[in-house]
Formats: sequence, structure tokens, C-alpha cells
Amino acid sequence: MTEQITGPRPTLEAVAARAGVSRATASRVVNGGAGVRAPLVEKVRRAVEELGYVPNHAARTLVTRRNGAVAVIIAEPEFRIFSDPFFEQQVRGISRELTAHDAQLVLLWVEGPGDHERIARYLGGGHVDGALAFSLHSDDRLSALIVRSGVPTVFGGRPAGSDLAVPFVDCDNRGGAREAVRHLVSLGRKRIAHIAGPRDQTSALDRIAGYHDVLVDADPALLCQGDFTRESGARAMAQLLDRWPDLDAVFASNDLMAAGALSTLRERGVRVPEDVAVVGFDDMESVVRDTAPALTTVRQDIEGMGRIMVKLLMRRLDGAGEAESASASASVITQTSLVRRASA
Amino acid sequence: MTEQITGPRPTLEAVAARAGVSRATASRVVNGGAGVRAPLVEKVRRAVEELGYVPNHAARTLVTRRNGAVAVIIAEPEFRIFSDPFFEQQVRGISRELTAHDAQLVLLWVEGPGDHERIARYLGGGHVDGALAFSLHSDDRLSALIVRSGVPTVFGGRPAGSDLAVPFVDCDNRGGAREAVRHLVSLGRKRIAHIAGPRDQTSALDRIAGYHDVLVDADPALLCQGDFTRESGARAMAQLLDRWPDLDAVFASNDLMAAGALSTLRERGVRVPEDVAVVGFDDMESVVRDTAPALTTVRQDIEGMGRIMVKLLMRRLDGAGEAESASASASVITQTSLVRRASA
Repeated sequence: MTEQITGPRPTLEAVAARAGVSRATASRVVNGGAGVRAPLVEKVRRAVEELGYVPNHAARTLVTRRNGAVAVIIAEPEFRIFSDPFFEQQVRGISRELTAHDAQLVLLWVEGPGDHERIARYLGGGHVDGALAFSLHSDDRLSALIVRSGVPTVFGGRPAGSDLAVPFVDCDNRGGAREAVRHLVSLGRKRIAHIAGPRDQTSALDRIAGYHDVLVDADPALLCQGDFTRESGARAMAQLLDRWPDLDAVFASNDLMAAGALSTLRERGVRVPEDVAVVGFDDMESVVRDTAPALTTVRQDIEGMGRIMVKLLMRRLDGAGEAESASASASVITQTSLVRRASA
Repeated sequence: MTEQITGPRPTLEAVAARAGVSRATASRVVNGGAGVRAPLVEKVRRAVEELGYVPNHAARTLVTRRNGAVAVIIAEPEFRIFSDPFFEQQVRGISRELTAHDAQLVLLWVEGPGDHERIARYLGGGHVDGALAFSLHSDDRLSALIVRSGVPTVFGGRPAGSDLAVPFVDCDNRGGAREAVRHLVSLGRKRIAHIAGPRDQTSALDRIAGYHDVLVDADPALLCQGDFTRESGARAMAQLLDRWPDLDAVFASNDLMAAGALSTLRERGVRVPEDVAVVGFDDMESVVRDTAPALTTVRQDIEGMGRIMVKLLMRRLDGAGEAESASASASVITQTSLVRRASA
């Protein structure tokens, strides 16, 4: 097992020997340099350059994908994961894509802040090669704990803190919201309300921003707070109707809340779209197929975004060294499109 | 780090030294003896007796619960897990109980036979301390692969093969079915059909057996096959109505199929319970609260069974050595009860 320092394809052992460090240290530097002191990093990098070392991707894949498993972390309690079809659709694309990469999906969720440390411990325990994290909230520490665990992670949805330089996949929430509200304006609607999602999630905040982009002078009381559940949409709609007798349009921050709003409108005998036009967000098959009338909504490709997340993660795992530095810029924003049906 | 052979509390090292084996071998024997040749097992057991060695439970807990994680394996595709509330209810009790034990729940599911080997590899990879496996089917190899992985496992539902000596938690499916059918008989119903669940699951087979226990001479054509989904219940009900104009009662093998049957009866203008009485199985809150009329059903404590599964598993992990031999007898069968509502 002697290695040729000057062979046609220098090995990592050769790099380690030239740098005067252990193979493990050389490996750590080549794979990102975490936990290695700066002078040693410098020595190894110089050796890599001098020898013209090219990392062996196949070998590194064996190291970076040694567990054959990827954690999917949904920062929501179990009852929401199973009742909101959004998560099923998200997981579906991921599940298929991970299977195509022969990686085992292990699903974790979060009942409350008490679970954060345990999840971070599990991630740090070396049981998964990477993680995909969803539905993170700005006021919890989970995002930071996940990043600190050192497990390569791709976030679903833009993380709240600008200090987290992690790759993420999101749709153009703000642009999609703008399109929804512009559509309602184009229909001649004058009193357009917004049922907003939870303010600790960037998707909800971005959609609020898109609403305000179009309706710069909207009365603040036209914005009613929901939490992405059907029930909150129904409640918000009732409040809005009480508050604004001349209301003629609603943009809801997701389809479930739009469906809740439609049920309130029906109960009150308000005609859709004649009296009040309604637009949702998501285009979630299992929700839009049941609404009456059929829901006009902003489509985001939920399954497709899940597949992109897996691809980003696998690219990181398969080419860890180089990708590491570029990871923050590897985020993907997908386009949305307005799907016109009967409700607006 | 020298160990006293004759100290007040002999150590495992002392046992190993006395038996003339390595500490690892002694440990394996103390923890069940898997993979150790019989003569060595004998030597270690003798040393244990001679020294009066008492396993240190706390230390063993550190070993047997070193990952702090338990896999929950549901042998169903993702779309069923998210659409059938049975699984949510099952997972809910487990999730709470695992949290109480500070163990991380990782959920795995099975899209098809192609996933079996990968799941077994994951389990065998030492990433979880134990597993809870549900909804296993008699015609797949998953049960055997799980057992062979060596991870302590408790099954939800009696496994099909009698050769698998694994602990399981199940309800009294056969007794519950008997009670349902006896109730329909007591109402004076003469033509009682059964919508059966999939024949590769013991729960469905046991409920069929319970139906036949009461209706020994039932016409085989009164039994119609479903697959535990709402749609299959609706289809089976239509077939039964076409086949038996004098049908006056149906026992469905689960609540979802009963709900599907009720929708078919409503569409056809058949009155429930006046014309046809309907009984389900499960008493699943999210299903029974929506049916019209309210569903009479056989209640099993789904959440409670999940909690029992975790307790059995934790007992095995915390006292692995002794429990190992008694594991096959540690299964639990819970009682069912008939919940009378409007449909029968």
C-alpha cells in the first residue's frame, strides 16, 4: 500500500504526506475543513495544489453517503402533518427522489420546543447523511441547531435569519401573491382583503408583502390573521365580513384557508365569485378538487420543489468539498403561476 | 483500570476474565447470546453464576439506548399513511410515549417490495435502538428482514408467520367481530354481509373468522372483499346491494370502509338503520364524527396500543438480557368494545 507521490493521479495519502498531516486531517480539509486549525488547512490546500490532487468522487460518495439515509424534518406537530395535505405532497416528491438515489427517508417532526435538542442530538449522532428541513419558524432555535449539527441540510422555504447561509428551495411567494392580487384588481374588485399565514414563516410574510406591493394604500384592517389551517380561514372570513360589508374579494395565503373562507361565505349566503371573489395559494390537488366553486389559486410545484431539494442535497453529498463553499448560493426559487378556475 | 475479580460487585470484565473470553463476547452472552458459539455461551454463563454477576442495568441502558432513536415502520405507501387516519392515531400515542422516554421517533414507510432491503439495511446499520413495525403483510418478506436485522422490535398487529417469535400488540380482532355480528343478529337482522379487509393482514382475517363464528352457515357471496380504503367500502356496498336485494345488515372490517358503505347506501336511497344496519371496526374519531348516521362500531384503543408497544420495547431495551428469552410471550392482546350509535 505504498503511494506514489508523483503518480498520474495523486491520492489523498500523498496529499497528507506532502502536508505532513494525518490522512484524516487531509480528508477533513478536502471535505470542507470543519474543525481543522487554519495553519493545517493552509498546508493541506498547498499540498493539494502542488500535487494537482483531484478528489475521488466515488470514494467520497462512499464516505458522505455511508448511512444511506436522509432525515426529513418537518417543524410542525404530528396532527398538522397528517391533516394538512401540503406536507403529504411535499414528502411525496422527496420520497420518490430519495428512492431513486437508494437513500432511506426517515421522517421526524416537532411537537414543541422540547423536541429541538433531541432532534439536533439525533442529527449530530451520525445516523443520516443529510437532512431536508421544512416549515421552520423564525422564533424557534431549530434552524440554528440543525445547521450547527453539521449535517448537510437543504431547507424547504427561505429560512428567516439572514445569518443562516444554508441552501434552500422556495417558490416566488411575493411574486405569486402579487399576481393573485393583480388578478383581483383586474376583475374590478375594489375592497380586497388578505387572510395571512403565520407571521413566523417567511412564506406568509412574503405573501403579505406581495399583497402590499399591489395595494400600497390598503387599510390595515383588510388584513386578517390566520395560521394556514382551514378553521382559521373560516374564522378570518367571518371577521372580515363583519368588518367590511362592501368586501368584494379575498386573497388567502394558502388553499386550506381559502377553503375555510369559502365555507363561511356559503354559510352566510354570499355568492362566489359574484359577491366575493376568492383566490388561494398552493394549488393543492386534494383541496382544490373539493371546493365549491372550484378555487382560483396561485400554483407552486410542491412535489417538484421536493425533488429539487433532494437533488441539491445529493449534489452536496456527492461532491462535498467543492460544493461546500458554494452551498449558500445554490438555493433555488421556483416560479409560480395563477390557475384560473371559478372562484375569481 | 484493573478489575477486582472478587469485589463486592463483579464486573463484566471479571466475568470475561473468568470465562477466558473477550469482554465483547461476555457482553453478547449477557445480552442474549446472539452470534456466540454454544461452548463459549456455556463458559460465560458459568462465570456469571460463579461470580454472582448482576448486570448493570443503567450501563446496559446506555448501550442498548445509545442512539436515542426508535424507528416506526409502517408497511404501507405514503399516500395511505397520510390519507388513512388510522395511522395518525397509531403514531400519536407512540410519539407521546417515545417523547416521555426521550427517544427520537423516526418514521419510515414502504412504497413497495423494492424498499424492503434498504429498510433492513438501515435497521441493521445501528442507527436506531429499536423498532415498532405496523401493517405488515403476510406475502412480503419485510417481517423476516426486520427480525433478521437484529434490532429489538415490537410488532403492531399479530404477524402472519407463526415462525416469527416477536412480541406484538394487537386487539382481540376475532372477539370484536363476533360482538359486532351478534349485535346485528340481536337486532333481528337476517341477511348480514361482511365487507372484509385485505387477506394478507391478520386483523382482516381474524375479523372474517369472527363473522363466521357467529354466522356459521353464511353464504360465501355475503362476503365482499375490500382493502380498508373508503372507496373499496363504497364499491363493495354497491356490489352487495346488487347481489342481495333483501340485505338488511353489513359489518365492515374497518370504519373507513363502513363510511364508504354509508355513502353508497345514501346515494341509492337506502335508509340506515331502517333498511340496512351498518357496523364498523376501530372507532376512529376522525371518521365516526362525520358519518351520517353516526356509526356504530367496535372500538379498539389505537392510541393506547401504541403506548403499550413503546412500553414493551423500552422494557426490552432497558433489561435486554432477561427479557430476550421471554420476549415471545410478552405480547399483549387488548379488549374491544361495541360502541352503539345510530347506524345499528
